[in-house]
Amino acid sequence: MITSAKRVFLSAVALTLCNPVCADTLVSTQDEFRQAISTATPGDTIIMADGEWNDFEMLFSGVGSSDEPITLTAQNKGSVIITGQSNLRLVGEYLVVSGLVFKDGYSPTNTVVSFRAASGRLASHSRVTELVIDHFNNPERFETDFWVMMYGQHNRFDHNFLAGKSNAGVTMAVRLDSENSRENYHQIDHNYFGPRPILGSNGGETLRIGTSQYSLTDSFTLIEYNYFDRRDGEVEIISSKSGSNTFRGNVFFESRGTLTLRHGNDNLIEDNVFLGNGVDHTGGIRVINKRQTVRNNYLSNLKGHRFGGALVVMNGVPNSPINRYHQVEDSVIANNTIIESDHIELAAGADSERSAPPIRTTFQNNLIINAEVKDSIAVHGDISGITFSDNITSGILVFPSNQGFEARTLSLVEGSNGLLYPGAALADIGVSKSLSVLDRKDTGPSWYPKPGYEEAFDRGDVSTVVGGNDTLSDVVANSLPGDVIELEPGEYIVSKFLAIAHPLTIRGVTDGETRPIIKFERSTLFELKDGGSLKLEGITIDGSMAPDTYNNSVIRTSRYSMLNNYELYIDDVQVRNLNVNHSFHFLKVAMHTMAENIEIRNSDFQDITGHILALNRETDDLGIYNAEYVTIQNSSFINIEGSLATIYRGGTDESTFGPHFRLENSTLDNVGNGSRNSSQASVSLLGVQSTFISDNQFTNSAPIRVIHTVGEPVTTLSENVFSNTMAPIIREFQRPVL
Amino acid sequence: MITSAKRVFLSAVALTLCNPVCADTLVSTQDEFRQAISTATPGDTIIMADGEWNDFEMLFSGVGSSDEPITLTAQNKGSVIITGQSNLRLVGEYLVVSGLVFKDGYSPTNTVVSFRAASGRLASHSRVTELVIDHFNNPERFETDFWVMMYGQHNRFDHNFLAGKSNAGVTMAVRLDSENSRENYHQIDHNYFGPRPILGSNGGETLRIGTSQYSLTDSFTLIEYNYFDRRDGEVEIISSKSGSNTFRGNVFFESRGTLTLRHGNDNLIEDNVFLGNGVDHTGGIRVINKRQTVRNNYLSNLKGHRFGGALVVMNGVPNSPINRYHQVEDSVIANNTIIESDHIELAAGADSERSAPPIRTTFQNNLIINAEVKDSIAVHGDISGITFSDNITSGILVFPSNQGFEARTLSLVEGSNGLLYPGAALADIGVSKSLSVLDRKDTGPSWYPKPGYEEAFDRGDVSTVVGGNDTLSDVVANSLPGDVIELEPGEYIVSKFLAIAHPLTIRGVTDGETRPIIKFERSTLFELKDGGSLKLEGITIDGSMAPDTYNNSVIRTSRYSMLNNYELYIDDVQVRNLNVNHSFHFLKVAMHTMAENIEIRNSDFQDITGHILALNRETDDLGIYNAEYVTIQNSSFINIEGSLATIYRGGTDESTFGPHFRLENSTLDNVGNGSRNSSQASVSLLGVQSTFISDNQFTNSAPIRVIHTVGEPVTTLSENVFSNTMAPIIREFQRPVL
Repeated sequence: MITSAKRVFLSAVALTLCNPVCADTLVSTQDEFRQAISTATPGDTIIMADGEWNDFEMLFSGVGSSDEPITLTAQNKGSVIITGQSNLRLVGEYLVVSGLVFKDGYSPTNTVVSFRAASGRLASHSRVTELVIDHFNNPERFETDFWVMMYGQHNRFDHNFLAGKSNAGVTMAVRLDSENSRENYHQIDHNYFGPRPILGSNGGETLRIGTSQYSLTDSFTLIEYNYFDRRDGEVEIISSKSGSNTFRGNVFFESRGTLTLRHGNDNLIEDNVFLGNGVDHTGGIRVINKRQTVRNNYLSNLKGHRFGGALVVMNGVPNSPINRYHQVEDSVIANNTIIESDHIELAAGADSERSAPPIRTTFQNNLIINAEVKDSIAVHGDISGITFSDNITSGILVFPSNQGFEARTLSLVEGSNGLLYPGAALADIGVSKSLSVLDRKDTGPSWYPKPGYEEAFDRGDVSTVVGGNDTLSDVVANSLPGDVIELEPGEYIVSKFLAIAHPLTIRGVTDGETRPIIKFERSTLFELKDGGSLKLEGITIDGSMAPDTYNNSVIRTSRYSMLNNYELYIDDVQVRNLNVNHSFHFLKVAMHTMAENIEIRNSDFQDITGHILALNRETDDLGIYNAEYVTIQNSSFINIEGSLATIYRGGTDESTFGPHFRLENSTLDNVGNGSRNSSQASVSLLGVQSTFISDNQFTNSAPIRVIHTVGEPVTTLSENVFSNTMAPIIREFQRPVL
Repeated sequence: MITSAKRVFLSAVALTLCNPVCADTLVSTQDEFRQAISTATPGDTIIMADGEWNDFEMLFSGVGSSDEPITLTAQNKGSVIITGQSNLRLVGEYLVVSGLVFKDGYSPTNTVVSFRAASGRLASHSRVTELVIDHFNNPERFETDFWVMMYGQHNRFDHNFLAGKSNAGVTMAVRLDSENSRENYHQIDHNYFGPRPILGSNGGETLRIGTSQYSLTDSFTLIEYNYFDRRDGEVEIISSKSGSNTFRGNVFFESRGTLTLRHGNDNLIEDNVFLGNGVDHTGGIRVINKRQTVRNNYLSNLKGHRFGGALVVMNGVPNSPINRYHQVEDSVIANNTIIESDHIELAAGADSERSAPPIRTTFQNNLIINAEVKDSIAVHGDISGITFSDNITSGILVFPSNQGFEARTLSLVEGSNGLLYPGAALADIGVSKSLSVLDRKDTGPSWYPKPGYEEAFDRGDVSTVVGGNDTLSDVVANSLPGDVIELEPGEYIVSKFLAIAHPLTIRGVTDGETRPIIKFERSTLFELKDGGSLKLEGITIDGSMAPDTYNNSVIRTSRYSMLNNYELYIDDVQVRNLNVNHSFHFLKVAMHTMAENIEIRNSDFQDITGHILALNRETDDLGIYNAEYVTIQNSSFINIEGSLATIYRGGTDESTFGPHFRLENSTLDNVGNGSRNSSQASVSLLGVQSTFISDNQFTNSAPIRVIHTVGEPVTTLSENVFSNTMAPIIREFQRPVL
């Protein structure tokens, strides 16, 4: 149990007290900083001068006292900017850091803020508050590092802003790997965890408490009143891997993934609010292990399924190794409200290995409501070890148990806290009316703005270009994010790469039958730089002037790692003559790039020696992939030697929701038959999690090949017509032996 | 036939004449340049001011006259430096450019110097002289571009310096794709073509005259008195793809590859000197097509074989398509001297497709000499269509024909031109005594220094480091090329990447049994940056502190394209505990990086979850690969889940000599059995051209797997002992269907 008596935190008041002997020292250089740190005594404050501190590895070492900590702060909070190759380490006791901003750089070591200096040299009774880490990313997407590593005991991390981590690695972790980091009583509260984009791999968690190795140890970490805003990294938003943690009063807003009790026992999840707003793969709480309590949580409009559902109770592995799935035992799931959520999963993951069902577990006083009747509770195995009682439902088709559920028809009204409650009074069912909902503005430092919502495309200026030699180059180079470039009908000859560094629309103006036609002389027409996204509408692209070398493309990503996921929209585009040499692709991507969304509509492609969408660069089988959503509709493809799409997601982990692939109402004629098309498929999908191929006409083409790897991929093929085309091949993965 | 009357070149004298009305205009800015160009009249000279001109796309458009060209030159030759994203286009007539230096940049288009402005806007009767293009490379190794493109007619390119092209693309090409670029009578003379490194792919030629499409057209290009110095790009140094060209008086010094008459007829190769100096894959002349004349060439110490031999006469394809091999007909090979060269190949490439033998061809008055007897003439098919007469040999074991060869025992003496001649007088056999040998100093601009020969390693300072936390980082960061860092015995903890940006030696100082041990906390210990090479001696490397993520490594290349080939030498190194997570490799490389040489000797490796040498990033089957020479000797490998080496060279072209692999006197115990080792091999070689595996002990290991793709790979396995290890699997390539 958690005893509040053990929690001794530095209060905000301590920051403002100073007895007569303590000193405020303003430092302006790295040497002055080091000098001030080395001579600081309890009660002292080191004040960093406003401005930019570049390439600064800050070591804050000292011993303060409970009444008189040593404080490191900014001359003006938010005006001390740490940039370049920089980081911060704390070692000692009773240290306080506040007011610093890390941006425009990344750590040269594996951590930005670490509560230790080196192995064995830890910080305890220390606090980091009102700190900002904003897109402080290693430029290599799959160079793993961490923003905050908590070691030691009795530390507090509060009112901080952490947003935009885009490279691999947990945003924040509590480490228990040494004796004096366990039973740590850390407090993590009132932080703003801002948007984290889809990583497209394992390693995108927001917060991890412990590791499997020490997961049977108590951590006693309190995680309360934090705001998780669009944290989409991977399937786990929080991964609790230790015992006796409390997750209380947090808000999860439009965040893909779940709060997962992955390892460790005796954890408490209460008073949290999950607002999915219908966003794909938004999830709630996943329960594994012993003596877990999940109560008074509000889960609304969550669309996740399987391990990412609104509420998931897993099956375990009998006598599980420390790093697999322990059986759910003696757990309580009570007084939760689940509204308009698609999937509650019981005995989830049951298979030959995970054969130990939940036991001695209660599921009671929960409220489950859908506006329209649907089948949102799934049972995957034996749930006789779960006792259901006093649950009330509305709009649920099938109950997991004959008893413990009462169906009603309930309407919802908004409570004073903004949450929805049944119009009818239901005593002690669902969340309490007094549940307090954390306001986003009460998290993070008050002085640092939180990100809004902005459209990527079509929000800037519109400029018009006429045909000729290189008339496009300068306009593209001088464009701003969201701009639109309109092309008059005519021929455009492009002798240089067009670098797309931000969202940009290129739109043809058609004059009767005449359209703008773009020809290009380099190995690609468009190169998407990190941050770039592209929308093409109403143009014709002709590859006949491309160089007589293999491996050309119309669009390619940066050849380097891209931290930003990109979007690509193709509508009413004709693509011709990509055939001056072999392997001429429409879209070619590099390793460690990620398309968040690719859509092709109302377009036609003809005479192409490569692939249309070559999304297969991650062949290391590490669970990484190159595109989250790919949609092709109402388009035609004729004489394509490569595949219409080749998407590769290898690896055996279950950390991602994608890739997703959708092909509808399109025609393929002689697609995929080229001798260099190694998959020998018109559509080649490996490890894709969601496939929908419907209402298409395949003629004289190579077959569709779908290889399932891990997870429970959903593959739907319907209403396709195959003429002189082998039937689709769908099979489970087997390693090819070369 | 070539008629000298048609050659009307601008003479050097024209540069110095000026009638009263012509003007010299000094320009200092890009605008002044454009203004001066636009108003220039015949006889005018535009003088670019000394200094650096950055990001300058120069368009030199004008019409001079035969007597009064328009001249663009430097205030002081060699002092006008064009940098950044720059290039030069000439369009018009009677233009002369001289004295400019292109370096520290690359062209934003596909060409640095182009004898046209755009399609159809060509330059003729123009001259580029004393120009320097020095390592002016696109940073992307496989972004194809060209340094010089000659279009038009009657142009001259002379006394230029072109060295260090390291990205893909022919260094210089003569284009015949429009009517007024054919029968061009261009002259390419006295140029210095300096070192071009091994590209590891097709696209590394130095000079190409035409393309297959127009190869039956006469080009009448004269290529004389050029110096080809260490031009190692790929199998073709010069690729002649048009008719009636003359190659005369050129020197090929230690250059891998051959002068190839790839397409087109009626070419003349005479008075050229090939000095291989025993360097691997140095070659001579390859003959294909009709009415070729190869006479009075001196070929010495050339080690190339097959298509890269000293003298190669190919078989053709009956009724060959324009881009395959035309039959050799009516050709003459006469009065050549071939000394100490390993391979003369007749009817080379004979196979089921190339079944048309040479016909009506004479091979006469040639001199072939080896100091010790060897079998250096190979016959691959029917050579009854070659008439042999009056050839004299010394030290040749087997003759291709019963007649036309006379064996003697000849000694050699140096002639006044520095070449070797038989001591005995032989009338009209071999090259003429009066053959003039081009001196390197007579090529290129006199004012620009030519590259020498320098050792990469161990030529700098020696510094000593003691153990501790990050004691290595600063020393490595501050090192200079060729430095040596000596490590005292002790433990070294490294928390940051050690970036190796130049050749560097790290050498352990052992104290009895105690050695320096390096542990590291990031995903790799050493990262080779472009230009970096590494030698490790006498140290122990332990991976136990590496991050708990997959895909770590001890050494990796830059994740980006590297223009410079690197070298890696490992001697007396112990590697331990690369097993904190899966896929922990010793060496991991990125796409578009190239090891020129990797050698591991006297070292031992134990407990590793990945590969030792993962040289398999070029999976696009485009003929690209990651290492030229890999040698492992006297080393031991225990418990390696991945492969000892996995080398991949896909594709179907025959443009490269490598990769080469050698494994000797080593022991492998439990190597290659990891479930993630996709090749399921202890040694996995695909498309390796030369394999030698001898005197090794394999125990409890996965098999050796060798897959031959194209070429005539040589695979030798001998004296290996296999205990509880499947026998080696050697087979021809078949595409795996997924």
